[in-house]
Amino acid sequence: MVIPVVLKTVPEHARVWHRVFAQEAPELSLVDWAHGTRFPGVSAFAGWQPPADLAEQMPDLRLVFSVGAGIDHLPLDALPEPVHIVRMVAPDVTRSMVEYVTLGVLALHRDLVPYASETRRGIWKPRAIRTARTTQVGILGLGVLGSAAAAALAGFGFQVRGWARSPKTLDGVTCFAGRSALPDFLSGCNILVCLLPLTPETRGLLDGDLFRHLPAGAALLNAGRGAHVVERDLIAALDTGQLGAAILDVLSEEPPPADHPLLGHPRILVTPHSASASQPDDAARQMIAAVRALRDGQPLLNRVDRRRGF
Amino acid sequence: MVIPVVLKTVPEHARVWHRVFAQEAPELSLVDWAHGTRFPGVSAFAGWQPPADLAEQMPDLRLVFSVGAGIDHLPLDALPEPVHIVRMVAPDVTRSMVEYVTLGVLALHRDLVPYASETRRGIWKPRAIRTARTTQVGILGLGVLGSAAAAALAGFGFQVRGWARSPKTLDGVTCFAGRSALPDFLSGCNILVCLLPLTPETRGLLDGDLFRHLPAGAALLNAGRGAHVVERDLIAALDTGQLGAAILDVLSEEPPPADHPLLGHPRILVTPHSASASQPDDAARQMIAAVRALRDGQPLLNRVDRRRGF
Repeated sequence: MVIPVVLKTVPEHARVWHRVFAQEAPELSLVDWAHGTRFPGVSAFAGWQPPADLAEQMPDLRLVFSVGAGIDHLPLDALPEPVHIVRMVAPDVTRSMVEYVTLGVLALHRDLVPYASETRRGIWKPRAIRTARTTQVGILGLGVLGSAAAAALAGFGFQVRGWARSPKTLDGVTCFAGRSALPDFLSGCNILVCLLPLTPETRGLLDGDLFRHLPAGAALLNAGRGAHVVERDLIAALDTGQLGAAILDVLSEEPPPADHPLLGHPRILVTPHSASASQPDDAARQMIAAVRALRDGQPLLNRVDRRRGF
Repeated sequence: MVIPVVLKTVPEHARVWHRVFAQEAPELSLVDWAHGTRFPGVSAFAGWQPPADLAEQMPDLRLVFSVGAGIDHLPLDALPEPVHIVRMVAPDVTRSMVEYVTLGVLALHRDLVPYASETRRGIWKPRAIRTARTTQVGILGLGVLGSAAAAALAGFGFQVRGWARSPKTLDGVTCFAGRSALPDFLSGCNILVCLLPLTPETRGLLDGDLFRHLPAGAALLNAGRGAHVVERDLIAALDTGQLGAAILDVLSEEPPPADHPLLGHPRILVTPHSASASQPDDAARQMIAAVRALRDGQPLLNRVDRRRGF
């Protein structure tokens, strides 16, 4: 019996998925999503942005596979409770995020944001050089990405601390847990890295109040989601010197309007949501594994806990 | 018997030197340099920019200690052959250079230079994400700094190759030696890092001819000396797309005039000669060790070979 799977993605990724399914999972048949079509009898959906009425178009839906580490773009409320949600956790996603976080932390540690802005305007003002072992980096979020980034930064010689919702133990990383530990955690962060999932609890967490708990002149790297940051508070903190610089891979609106106030700020460097992205062949293989696990009654890897939101 | 040592440096470093000498080498006495003064009987000089008539002002000179890895600023011709030249090789110098090279290579690998220039102007254009293991980095110069940088980059997953004047063997690094191997070396560099010493042989080595041997769209990181690069050829190579981007820590003129053509280029990011600098306490300790070795007839560490120029 051939099991059908619905795929909704961009054409260049769809080509890769079809190739991988044909070669590696002949017992599955990949069907391209089409708006307005009903897919009765099909229980598995893979994609980045499922439509809000997914459950209506797929009345027998049991598995949604999200191509990406975040799931804030999923219509969770519109997916009935028995639908399992599995998210992509790919080595390349982790690897490219670790590269980006290392790049961003080194850039902030070595004053790249003010240097780039100053030399462009003909200003030549070298600052004292610190080495990594005198700089404290704090990571908000110690999931797959945060833990891997923490390990890489500690290996590079930084003093690394991490904060998560629930207690964690990581080699070489001082761990803090829960809201009440947040001020303590923040007070020792020369550089703060946001790798949180976006949930109702973390939306807007990086606001003026949080920034005030950081040492004066601290720097921010946001590789989570734009909505983690209250952007007007960020600008205010940079303008008063509470924060020294920021590197942002994500903004509240993407793509941003050309006159977005964060784009031209001399203390902010923005990259266009390019920290990490899953590779389509890895994604296709993880979907195959998830469909087979569901068929065989095996546990699903990387299943999302709806109550936690990640 | 107290041995006098002449020091020529900036006041904030001199304070550190005096403290370290007083605490750790009571048998040495540190004398501050003064222009026009003669220092008969004093055999040891430490500093960054010795004057051209050093040997006249210090007729008994036997040891010049250069506070920094490079020695291109020393008046070699004006120092008689029996004068030993020792250069600073400090762990922090190496550590901060490794940090800078890792930062620069990651930045070029992840398109930070065009992203910074584009997002500043409201352009949101994410490119495909490569991971380090698909990117080849080539290092020109495999001395203390080049070898350490190569090891760090290989540890990060990059494919690393290196080029030096004479044959070298480094774990995990494909090594090339001599002028004749240069085209072969260059043809496999997606990112080229210059960590060469500045000598008559390496001055202007990074010119249009060299850039043409790189794969189209390759990137350049110069953390050597500004005079390694023929700057008008660099601009031409960026403008034709032969090179994709460049990060420069050094320029032909420092500080540069505010209208220097490299400063405002959208494909160039400049830092103000801030990749690495020796810490004054480390420098003072190495000078103490050198003076003691000379007094005791022991071999001098980090002695410069005048014929090679480094």
